[in-house]
Amino acid sequence: MTIAKKVSTAMQKSSWIRKMFEEGARLKAEHGAGNVFDFSLGNPNLPPPDEFGSALLDIVSTCGPGSHCYMPQPGHPDVCKSIAAYISEEQGIEIAPGDVIMTCGAAGALNVMLKALLDPGDEVIVPTPCFVEYNFYVDNHGGVLRTVPCNADFSLDLEAIEAAINDKTKAVLINSPNNPTGQIYSEESLKALGELLVSKSQAHDRIIYLLSDEPYRKIVFDGSVVPSIFKAYDQSIVATSYSKDLSIPGERIGFAAVHPRAIHNEEIMAAMALTIRILGFVNAPSLMQRVVADLQGLSVDIGIYERKRDLLCNGLKEAGYDIETPPGAFYLFPKTPIEDDVEFVRQLQKELILTVPGSGFMGPGHFRIAYCVDDDTIVKALPGFKRVMDRYK
Amino acid sequence: MTIAKKVSTAMQKSSWIRKMFEEGARLKAEHGAGNVFDFSLGNPNLPPPDEFGSALLDIVSTCGPGSHCYMPQPGHPDVCKSIAAYISEEQGIEIAPGDVIMTCGAAGALNVMLKALLDPGDEVIVPTPCFVEYNFYVDNHGGVLRTVPCNADFSLDLEAIEAAINDKTKAVLINSPNNPTGQIYSEESLKALGELLVSKSQAHDRIIYLLSDEPYRKIVFDGSVVPSIFKAYDQSIVATSYSKDLSIPGERIGFAAVHPRAIHNEEIMAAMALTIRILGFVNAPSLMQRVVADLQGLSVDIGIYERKRDLLCNGLKEAGYDIETPPGAFYLFPKTPIEDDVEFVRQLQKELILTVPGSGFMGPGHFRIAYCVDDDTIVKALPGFKRVMDRYK
Repeated sequence: MTIAKKVSTAMQKSSWIRKMFEEGARLKAEHGAGNVFDFSLGNPNLPPPDEFGSALLDIVSTCGPGSHCYMPQPGHPDVCKSIAAYISEEQGIEIAPGDVIMTCGAAGALNVMLKALLDPGDEVIVPTPCFVEYNFYVDNHGGVLRTVPCNADFSLDLEAIEAAINDKTKAVLINSPNNPTGQIYSEESLKALGELLVSKSQAHDRIIYLLSDEPYRKIVFDGSVVPSIFKAYDQSIVATSYSKDLSIPGERIGFAAVHPRAIHNEEIMAAMALTIRILGFVNAPSLMQRVVADLQGLSVDIGIYERKRDLLCNGLKEAGYDIETPPGAFYLFPKTPIEDDVEFVRQLQKELILTVPGSGFMGPGHFRIAYCVDDDTIVKALPGFKRVMDRYK
Repeated sequence: MTIAKKVSTAMQKSSWIRKMFEEGARLKAEHGAGNVFDFSLGNPNLPPPDEFGSALLDIVSTCGPGSHCYMPQPGHPDVCKSIAAYISEEQGIEIAPGDVIMTCGAAGALNVMLKALLDPGDEVIVPTPCFVEYNFYVDNHGGVLRTVPCNADFSLDLEAIEAAINDKTKAVLINSPNNPTGQIYSEESLKALGELLVSKSQAHDRIIYLLSDEPYRKIVFDGSVVPSIFKAYDQSIVATSYSKDLSIPGERIGFAAVHPRAIHNEEIMAAMALTIRILGFVNAPSLMQRVVADLQGLSVDIGIYERKRDLLCNGLKEAGYDIETPPGAFYLFPKTPIEDDVEFVRQLQKELILTVPGSGFMGPGHFRIAYCVDDDTIVKALPGFKRVMDRYK
């Protein structure tokens, strides 16, 4: 075998997902892309806000020599300063520029922090359903992912988390608003999680970190608020990106911030300045650092996603789907009427509807619908969703 | 310990380099940055070519919705097509768009390919002196770096490479023009290396890849040409970036290309499309992909670096330094007149001259001067270089 065994296995394991995507591509080729309802990818369909375009043009028009050079590994100091000021308000805690490191998106941030923290065999607890890449991110750096199911409403099951903690536990990794469920973990549950981690860190005589992946923080509905992680627990690190809220996922820009009161704040920041370099990121893209610095707090019109959620959620409920109406992100995660979610997703494909089986997110018996698509796609797909459900009712 | 042991060790090991940089920062604070001669970093001092600014402005002014979205992992198809066309000519072999994957610089490219290829314990042979990050890149993915000294003139020592090959050897990684020596490996030596790897792959019944890190390919002097790797050996992969030749290292844009006749070309490309995702890069920054696609073959005025090389090289030779005049890159790697290169570099610091000890590049008894600096810095530093040398003559 010429490819690394782990990579080769991952390629084979994901081959059924690939087959589904290939089937989707085949359907698009056969029926025309406009006639296939593609809900399979979290690629935001809204254009970036106008302010993004203006800021980009402004910076490109005025940037002087040296604008595209290397900068300190954590990012342009003035960019880190803007972001620290913004998240100080967001998290309700004073964050210094030195607590922030600019990264290639949230995925880059997570890899940089996991590389900084994990020794071989260290465990990272993740509530499921979860983003499927977490398993890779943890494994990349010799760690072991330990999954713990959420409650039926996709809220945190603290007893299950408590039971999973052991001498090997290095971190708990949460994602709220969640991909694929859209759930937001409540302030109470985060406070309880923080208290649990304080007592468990003491019991196991090692710091258990809380890592929070927050790319959907701004995409929330019905006036929901995503509670501050930093208020819940001092030994915490936030990872996020501008991919979803500014609709610029291809630009790979985000950041990580370490709690200012984390006991080893300085060492962790220094370690991440090293790991961002040695993992080959070196630094977050220079130009985009400058652009996002000027756009703190900005997002696309979230009301548009809220209306899409309602349109789809109401339509599916009417058709008989069993769904928790999600307060955030742009995903629905309905139950499948049969146990075999892969089979159900195949049936939807026959109606030219592309979705992803819940098994792909360690949430079997469900399927994920990414509704960051045109309203028209939603409206036209609803009859197909209904026809498939009718077969099982 | 809260930081991963390996990362913590790397932080401690590099602490003397850090101390030198801190000493440099202290000197700048004390004497004013303008009075310190900083030759320590390969951060190009030339501004990007005007065409870069125009292309960037043009693309930013005209980019439509979806310009900043996710694209296929290997990059925008039209970008891969431009690059394939250009390198087909450069390498003298027909390269298809599907042989190219856009990456976050050459560092990103190397990590993506090493993750795709290395099983735990697999060895990667690197001729020394070499770029100090290679050790990290190989170790990141469970591999073992096996260093092999070059000849005294920094050309490839093929016998040493042959002797280092064993059942664990997965790849030979070369860097030409070389950082830190500026040496270019000759067409003959690459041909001989290719033949060696053919016979050794056969003998050990596993493909030994030739990985070529080429960010300095365009920075060559005296009419020198960097020979094609693809002509020398079929089982080869090129990594490169636009950091040095377009002076945009902070933007993190480059690519990898797999030899079209590599036996496992398709598997390697598929594996790299997976590893770029799971390492958290996801894809190379979207906007910069488009910008570089329009600038194939362009570079800063290399004549400027050539004149800097001559200015510095002649000055140092007159002062008694023992140097191989390098045909490429923007580094000199002179011998130190004493064995202890760290001590020699400390002596230069006393003259407010910042350089890096050769030990940092596994080339002890030398020191590296990055001359991508203002002419003025070179001219004003020469007397200090002479004074230090005079003490040892």
